[in-house]
Amino acid sequence: MQPETTLLINGVVACVGFLMTMKLIPSFSPLFIAANLYGRDMSKTSDKKVPEALGVVSGAVYLVCMFFFIPFPFMDMTSDGNGSLNFNQKEFIQFIGALLSICCMVFLGFADDVLNLKWRHKLTLPTVASLPLLMVYYTNISNTFIIVPKPLRFFLGGELDLGILYYVYMGMLAVFCTNAINILSGINGLEAGQSVVICASIIVHNIIELSGPVSTYHLFSLYFMLPFLGTSLGILYFNWYPSQVFVGDTFCYFAGMTFAVVGILGHFSKTMILFFIPQVLNFLYSVPQLFHFIPCPRHRLPKFNAKTGLVGMSKATFKSSDMRFPGPLILRIAELARVVDVKRGLGEDGDVVECNNLTLNNFLLKTFGPMHERSLTILLLAIQVLCSCAAFYIRYCVSAMFYD
Amino acid sequence: MQPETTLLINGVVACVGFLMTMKLIPSFSPLFIAANLYGRDMSKTSDKKVPEALGVVSGAVYLVCMFFFIPFPFMDMTSDGNGSLNFNQKEFIQFIGALLSICCMVFLGFADDVLNLKWRHKLTLPTVASLPLLMVYYTNISNTFIIVPKPLRFFLGGELDLGILYYVYMGMLAVFCTNAINILSGINGLEAGQSVVICASIIVHNIIELSGPVSTYHLFSLYFMLPFLGTSLGILYFNWYPSQVFVGDTFCYFAGMTFAVVGILGHFSKTMILFFIPQVLNFLYSVPQLFHFIPCPRHRLPKFNAKTGLVGMSKATFKSSDMRFPGPLILRIAELARVVDVKRGLGEDGDVVECNNLTLNNFLLKTFGPMHERSLTILLLAIQVLCSCAAFYIRYCVSAMFYD
Repeated sequence: MQPETTLLINGVVACVGFLMTMKLIPSFSPLFIAANLYGRDMSKTSDKKVPEALGVVSGAVYLVCMFFFIPFPFMDMTSDGNGSLNFNQKEFIQFIGALLSICCMVFLGFADDVLNLKWRHKLTLPTVASLPLLMVYYTNISNTFIIVPKPLRFFLGGELDLGILYYVYMGMLAVFCTNAINILSGINGLEAGQSVVICASIIVHNIIELSGPVSTYHLFSLYFMLPFLGTSLGILYFNWYPSQVFVGDTFCYFAGMTFAVVGILGHFSKTMILFFIPQVLNFLYSVPQLFHFIPCPRHRLPKFNAKTGLVGMSKATFKSSDMRFPGPLILRIAELARVVDVKRGLGEDGDVVECNNLTLNNFLLKTFGPMHERSLTILLLAIQVLCSCAAFYIRYCVSAMFYD
Repeated sequence: MQPETTLLINGVVACVGFLMTMKLIPSFSPLFIAANLYGRDMSKTSDKKVPEALGVVSGAVYLVCMFFFIPFPFMDMTSDGNGSLNFNQKEFIQFIGALLSICCMVFLGFADDVLNLKWRHKLTLPTVASLPLLMVYYTNISNTFIIVPKPLRFFLGGELDLGILYYVYMGMLAVFCTNAINILSGINGLEAGQSVVICASIIVHNIIELSGPVSTYHLFSLYFMLPFLGTSLGILYFNWYPSQVFVGDTFCYFAGMTFAVVGILGHFSKTMILFFIPQVLNFLYSVPQLFHFIPCPRHRLPKFNAKTGLVGMSKATFKSSDMRFPGPLILRIAELARVVDVKRGLGEDGDVVECNNLTLNNFLLKTFGPMHERSLTILLLAIQVLCSCAAFYIRYCVSAMFYD
């Protein structure tokens, strides 16, 4: 079968995935509420129960779509006269291994949503789910060489064998992708929206590279990305402001693992990380709270003002003695650089400090003032698109300075 | 690596799986109760909350164990001087495809336990989960020939190409195995216990065949069965009378799919079905209620007598007009054959019928009288062992009449 035909079939599968997600999410939603899987939208005046963890539906639909797609890329009915099938076995193994990692991640993500696992599991679950991928890579490919950037070749040579470190890198990529999406969240449509933008960016990159020397890698990635785009658009429709469903950790894990898988097996993990610029910025900005250098409240999502109907930045209030080194130093520098809103000398004995919660959402609300929740989502997604444009610039213009 | 070495490593993995299950089930149990996943044991005087669906822990442990085991059977470090790995790619693809089906089944089973999906999903979920296996089989092997039993060879020839029907057969095998275990349940330790006996029977069969001409198939099966035995023994410990945890549909799906997978890819599905004799009897006996020829109450588990501490048969009471054809006929025949306890002419107008619920559990209680719940489990497991002995007799003595 020609790659064009397979890609066309994949596109049809993606459309079916979109339609199935659109149909199944509303019909399954009552079951989620009945099973106690729901939340209240803290940025709305109504107190309605919003079903939670619906990412499991888009994930399951995605898997079923991919299951049906399995035979197409790997059979070549014409090239063999005696009726048996031919295919590229190495690619086939990777394809199944990738699906196994994604399936495992959807499963563990759903278990996390249901059982409310502890924070340390946010790191172990993606590591566990990436195991099949790493093992398949180890058994099937086991190429751990990387190309050294030009400026370093004088010291390291043209190629460097990372050995076991390469597997550590792949495992960490899965942890990074899943959690990067998970922590840039808290407003309607953001988790699904950013995933759609990242997915679209990867698709554009893959299409550009289809005419290049490693087109098979990028074809492989497209097979995963198109159905993902379909099912993600489906859940985005219901998660968009005002959210009828929440996507849950399940979706963030699912999306992150899918990106990690195509990045690794498509051999463009560095380019893929470039599509995560807003997530990286959000992570770096969050570090003081995530690592508890500065006290971190349970919820950091923007604060809803019922009178104006707008969301503004939310704040953390704490005693200055509750900060841990290097918290006070970081806060002072951030204050001087005007990236954090800090008030000091509050409370009876003047010991209480107040600062905005350290998320990208709150930073934008600090910079542009309170705005409608939907506007904030659109602003964040616009930034994501701009960052993808920057990523393409880096990939196709700047990187020539480092690689041939 | 020699098969003996790989098998030894697999045995170690199985032991680790057992220990991990033993450790993780008690530590995760409180999370299940907090997530509303619990039931009350209806055959106990206490009203304690018993966590439900713990099969997901044994399933997850099993998957992690298998993930770590992936590289061992498929690399041969010695045969290649240049550092790259060799392996049997076809077997590798099947191995990963099998894990994908099992992983998908554990995931969907857990979703069923959490969301309480409808009855019709009991048939669709295993079908969906068996898809990867079928697709891998189609793309990788696509051999749909079966050997015709001797008495039929005159009509059909020595071999018969079942074509698409072969895939229907494989899909139905998954549905059969999962549901067969799921409906022989309702008393402490039975689901896990029967799975352990079936698994042990398969292991014995595999070991016998290891010296035969198709030893690779049976080696393949052992790789899946030993860790399954380990994790199942782990959950059986906690599910044994008095149950500290319930296994949930998750475990029944997980066990059934694992058996289906090894039966299909090990090419001994007919022998495997022989190990399901008690489940088949239970299913046949249940048919009138399962298909609603005779009204079926919500629970059919044996009835607990708090005074004696014993369980006795439970009964269904209904108007004779509520039976559907051929319900009355079946009930009359079963009554004459003395396999069902029927009382007629009850109620004010003499229209009400009472009969014991049609499960193997209740049949045994009808035959042997009320007994302790643990005794009933032991009796059922003893029957399972006897049936496995009968299965071996059929496989190794009787089948010679039908196959060379």
